[in-house]
Amino acid sequence: MRIRQLLVKTLREAPAEAELPSHRLLLRAGLVVPLAAGLYCFTPLGWRVVRSIERIIREEMNRSGALEVHLPALHPIELWEQSGRAALMGQTLFRLFDRKEREFALGPTHEEVISYLASRAIQSYRDLPVTLYQIQTKFRDEPRPRGGLIRLREFTMKDAYSFDTGWDTLDASYDAAFAAYQRIFRRAGVPVIPVAADSGAIGGKDSQEFVFLTESGEDTILLCPGCGYAANAEKAEFVPAPAVPGEPAPMERVHTPGRRTIAEVAEFLGVEPRQTLKAVFYKADGKPVFVAIRGDLEVNEVKLKNALGAREVEPMDEATVRELGLVAGSASPVGVSGIPVIADRSAVDSPNLVGGANEPDYHLRNVNHGRDWQATLVAEIALARTGDACRTCGQALETRRGIEMGHVFKLGTLYAEKMGVYYLDEHGERRPCVMGCYGIGVERLLAAIIEANHDADGIRWPWEVSPFDVHVVVIGAGEAAVDAALSELEQALQRSGLEPLIDDRDESPGIKFKDADLLGMPMRVTVSPRALERGGVEVRDRATGETRVLSPADAAAAIAAARSKAIEAGR
Amino acid sequence: MRIRQLLVKTLREAPAEAELPSHRLLLRAGLVVPLAAGLYCFTPLGWRVVRSIERIIREEMNRSGALEVHLPALHPIELWEQSGRAALMGQTLFRLFDRKEREFALGPTHEEVISYLASRAIQSYRDLPVTLYQIQTKFRDEPRPRGGLIRLREFTMKDAYSFDTGWDTLDASYDAAFAAYQRIFRRAGVPVIPVAADSGAIGGKDSQEFVFLTESGEDTILLCPGCGYAANAEKAEFVPAPAVPGEPAPMERVHTPGRRTIAEVAEFLGVEPRQTLKAVFYKADGKPVFVAIRGDLEVNEVKLKNALGAREVEPMDEATVRELGLVAGSASPVGVSGIPVIADRSAVDSPNLVGGANEPDYHLRNVNHGRDWQATLVAEIALARTGDACRTCGQALETRRGIEMGHVFKLGTLYAEKMGVYYLDEHGERRPCVMGCYGIGVERLLAAIIEANHDADGIRWPWEVSPFDVHVVVIGAGEAAVDAALSELEQALQRSGLEPLIDDRDESPGIKFKDADLLGMPMRVTVSPRALERGGVEVRDRATGETRVLSPADAAAAIAAARSKAIEAGR
Repeated sequence: MRIRQLLVKTLREAPAEAELPSHRLLLRAGLVVPLAAGLYCFTPLGWRVVRSIERIIREEMNRSGALEVHLPALHPIELWEQSGRAALMGQTLFRLFDRKEREFALGPTHEEVISYLASRAIQSYRDLPVTLYQIQTKFRDEPRPRGGLIRLREFTMKDAYSFDTGWDTLDASYDAAFAAYQRIFRRAGVPVIPVAADSGAIGGKDSQEFVFLTESGEDTILLCPGCGYAANAEKAEFVPAPAVPGEPAPMERVHTPGRRTIAEVAEFLGVEPRQTLKAVFYKADGKPVFVAIRGDLEVNEVKLKNALGAREVEPMDEATVRELGLVAGSASPVGVSGIPVIADRSAVDSPNLVGGANEPDYHLRNVNHGRDWQATLVAEIALARTGDACRTCGQALETRRGIEMGHVFKLGTLYAEKMGVYYLDEHGERRPCVMGCYGIGVERLLAAIIEANHDADGIRWPWEVSPFDVHVVVIGAGEAAVDAALSELEQALQRSGLEPLIDDRDESPGIKFKDADLLGMPMRVTVSPRALERGGVEVRDRATGETRVLSPADAAAAIAAARSKAIEAGR
Repeated sequence: MRIRQLLVKTLREAPAEAELPSHRLLLRAGLVVPLAAGLYCFTPLGWRVVRSIERIIREEMNRSGALEVHLPALHPIELWEQSGRAALMGQTLFRLFDRKEREFALGPTHEEVISYLASRAIQSYRDLPVTLYQIQTKFRDEPRPRGGLIRLREFTMKDAYSFDTGWDTLDASYDAAFAAYQRIFRRAGVPVIPVAADSGAIGGKDSQEFVFLTESGEDTILLCPGCGYAANAEKAEFVPAPAVPGEPAPMERVHTPGRRTIAEVAEFLGVEPRQTLKAVFYKADGKPVFVAIRGDLEVNEVKLKNALGAREVEPMDEATVRELGLVAGSASPVGVSGIPVIADRSAVDSPNLVGGANEPDYHLRNVNHGRDWQATLVAEIALARTGDACRTCGQALETRRGIEMGHVFKLGTLYAEKMGVYYLDEHGERRPCVMGCYGIGVERLLAAIIEANHDADGIRWPWEVSPFDVHVVVIGAGEAAVDAALSELEQALQRSGLEPLIDDRDESPGIKFKDADLLGMPMRVTVSPRALERGGVEVRDRATGETRVLSPADAAAAIAAARSKAIEAGR
C-alpha cells in the first residue's frame, strides 16, 4: 500500500500534555485521533495493529478451548441490581433510559450478562467445563481517563468466563486461561509478570494480574528478590517488624505539648515508632470507623474495605471528626465509644504502646489491648512497603511501578448463585456453577506494546502486531532503474507473503527516513539510485540498525526469514 | 468440534411470538438468546456465522480499496448539534450524561464522528479519494424492535464513508461501494435488488437500497415489469391517471346528505374518484398543514415531509381540527385561510373537481385551482400503488414486500460543510469534500440469510457463512468399526481444510438427524454400522437431499469439491 492512500499524517512533536512515550508515539505516528476525554478514533494505520492484537488473542483463546460469543453492551439495570453491583460500581457505571423510561447500564464488564446467557445454555454437568469469551466494547466512566490508551472510557476488552462443576476443575480452566495469557503477551512483545491481586469486593478466591513493569505505570508492585513473590500493593502480604517485648506496665498520662505526629511524639518520648499506636478515621459506606494500627505502619484501604465488607472507604470528613469529638493528633481507642474500632493485628500484638489521650497535647504510655481498649474487629490491614519482610522468605521486598495488562480471577459460586447459573449433577441435583473470569484490555495492550518497543526515533513493532512487514522508502521515483527495482521488489515481497508500506511521496529522503523510524515497521527497504549503484536495495533492521544491500529477490527472502525466525521465537 | 462442547441447545418449537421463519430458526437452532427488547446474546454457534459475515464484508470492502477504521460509540452531543441531527433523530437517539454532566449520544450512525476524524486526516486533494469503513456497534432506540434480528436496538453495522474532490469522482466511489455490496450479498446467499430510495431529511443526491424481496418484509417496493424500474414506496414515482378534461365550469354548491368519503360522494354525484378533490390534515413539526390531493390518490407522507423540509409529519389531532374549524368529510381548500395549503400536482392540473363545501352534508362541483383556491406550495406528494403507471415506460407497477439489506447514498457536501471536512485543491483553495455513505446491518443480513435459505426442516447455510462445513452424525459410538471410521473421516476432513461439527451424543438417530437438518450445515455425514456395511459413510447434501455412500477419504474429497464449486459459483 502507498503511504498516501493510508491517510498517514505524522507529527514532529506530540502535544505537551502527552507524557507517556506510548501516548506521544500514538499521536506522532497518527495511529489515533482523540475525540474527547478517554475516547479515541483509530486511523487505518492504528486499527491494523488493533486487528493484529485481536487476531493473536482469538488464536490463543481458541487454542485454549474457549468459545467466542457476543453479548450486548446495553444491559437492563435489573441484572446489575440482581448481582448487587449497580450500587457498587457507583459513578463508573454509565446509566441511561430508553424511550419507555426503562433504565439500562452500558456494560463496564459482563459477568451479569454472561451469567444470564449461561443460565440458559448450561443444563447438565455434561455441558461443563466451558469457557466463553468475547472481544467487545466496555464503557467505564473513569474519573481520570489518562495516558492516551492506558485508561479509556470506551475500550475493547477480551473478557472470558469459565464455568465448572467444582473448584478442582476451575483450577484447570484458570490454568488454561493463565497459559493463554502468557502466550498472548509473549507474541505481542510485552514482558509481563503475574502478581497476586486483591479479589475485591466481588469475593472469590485466587486472583492474579499480569503486570508490565514500567516506571510510567500507575500500579505499585511489591517484589521479593529472594523467593520471587510478587503482589500488587493492595494485596501484598508481609511480616511487620517485631514488637518490642515486655510485660504490660501501668498506663500513664504524659504531657506532649505541640506533638501531634507519630514521629514527633516518638522522638519526644524517646520510643520507636513501632512502640506507638496510630489512630486513623474513616467512613465506610458512610458510617464512621476508628482504625488503630501500630505507628510504624500505614493502613491499606483496600484490605480495610475487604475486612469490613464495605463497598467504599474514604477518610473521615472534618465535620464528622468534630461531631464525634475525636482529637486528631492525640486520638486513641482508649475510652472511645459509639464507633467501631478496627485494629490491625500489629496494634493488638504489641504491648506498652504510646497512644493518644483523646485530649490535645496529652498522650498515654503503656497502652495495652484487652486491658485498656478492645477492638471491634482485628484484621491484617497494613500496607506493604519497600523494605518490609517477605512473608515467605523474609527478604526485604522491593517496590516497582507497573501497568496491569490482564487479570485472571477465580470467582467461585457468587455470581452463579445470584444470577441463577446452575447445572444438574450426575445425581440430578441442582448445583451452582463455579466460575472464573479473565480479562485483557486491547487498547491498553497496544499502548504497552509501544511502551515496551520503542526508542528515541519511534516505534519498533514486534512482527506479529506490526501494521506492515516492510517500510519501503523510494528515492528517485520516476527514474527507470528505480521504478524497475521497486516493481521487482513488490513482486518478490508479494510472493513471500509480505505486506509493504511504500513511501513514494515527493518528500526529502530525510523526512521519509524519519517517518520510517517513527512508524516502526520491523524492516526498512530503500530503493534509490545510490543503493542500486551498490548492487541492489538497502535493507535495514529497525531494531538493530543493521544494514545490507541485496537484490530485490534476496531482500524479500531475507525479510521473510527474519520474520519467521522472530515469530517462531515469540511463540 | 463436538456438539456438546459447543453448548448447542436446539428447540423443537419456537416461542409463539416469533413469527418470521428466521426468528423461529434463530431461536430453535440456539444461535441467539434474547436479553431484552431488541437486544440479543449470540451463542458460540450463532457468533461463528456473524464472524463469517464480517469476514466476507471485510474482504470485499478491502478489495474495493476502502480502509478500515474504528470510531467510538460514545459521541459528544455537540457533534450531533453541529450537524443538526440531535433534534432530527428524536427519541431514536440514546442520550446519557457522564459524571461531569457532559451529555453524550450513543452513535446510531457515524457521519458526524467520521467527519471529525476526516477533518483531521484529510489535508489536500492528494489525500483523495478515500473510503473509510468500520464494523462497529450502533445503538438506536427503535419504537418497535421486531422480527428477531431484523430490527434491533443494538446491532453491528458495516458503515463506510467516501470522501471525494467532486461529484464526478464521488460517482466512482459510489459505484465501487455498490459493486462491493453486490458481491457481499451474492457470497452471503441473499438475492437482492437495488431500488431507488428516498434521500431523506439529510439531503443529498442519489440513494439506493439493496432489498431482499420477501413476503415477511416490512418495506413496500414498487417494481416495473416493463423497464425494471424499482423504488421503495417512499420514493417511487409514477404517472397518475389523466384528468378528465374540460373547460372550467361555474362552481356550484350541492347537497350531499351523509356522504363523507370520496367513494360515497363520487357515487352520489355520478363522477369518478379522479374527479374529486381530497383534503387531508397534518401537522408538520407541530404546525398545521392542509393537504389537497385528487380523490383517487393517497398522500405519501415522506414526500410531503421532504416537500415541506420538515423533520416530522403526523396526522392532525382532532383538537386542532376542531380549533381550526375544519370539517372532516366535507373539507376543501376553497375559502380556507390561516393555514398553508400544500397541493399535489394532480389537484392543480385537474379541472372541475368535486370538493368539500366546508360545511357538513354539502360539497362543491367544478372546483378549479387558481380560480377557486390557491395552493401555498405545489409538489408531487402522491403515493405510488399497485397498477399505477411507470413513469419511464408506462407499464403498470407491481408491489412487493422486502427487507432493506443495505443502503448507498450520495451525501454531497452537506456534512463536510457543517462538520468542517475541507481539502486544499491544486490551486491551494479550500473546498468541502464531497461525501458518500454506505451501510450494511450485519445481524439483519444474518436473518435474511436464513429467510432466503431454509426449508421446513431447518436452515440451509450457504457454504461461505456456514458455522461448520460438515455435520457428522455418529451412530454406534464405541463400536470399534464406527470409531475407526470416524477417526479416519476426521483426519481426511482436516487434510481437506474442512471443519466438522460432530454429534456423538447419546441420543436417538432420529433426534440427531432432526438436529442436523435444523442446524443446517451444507453436508451431513453419517458414520454408522449400517453405512459401514454398505461400504463407507453416508454423505448427504442438505440442500438437494442427495445421498451417497463413500469411503471416509472420498467423502472428504467430495465435500471439499462441492464446497469449492459452490463458493466459486457465488463469487
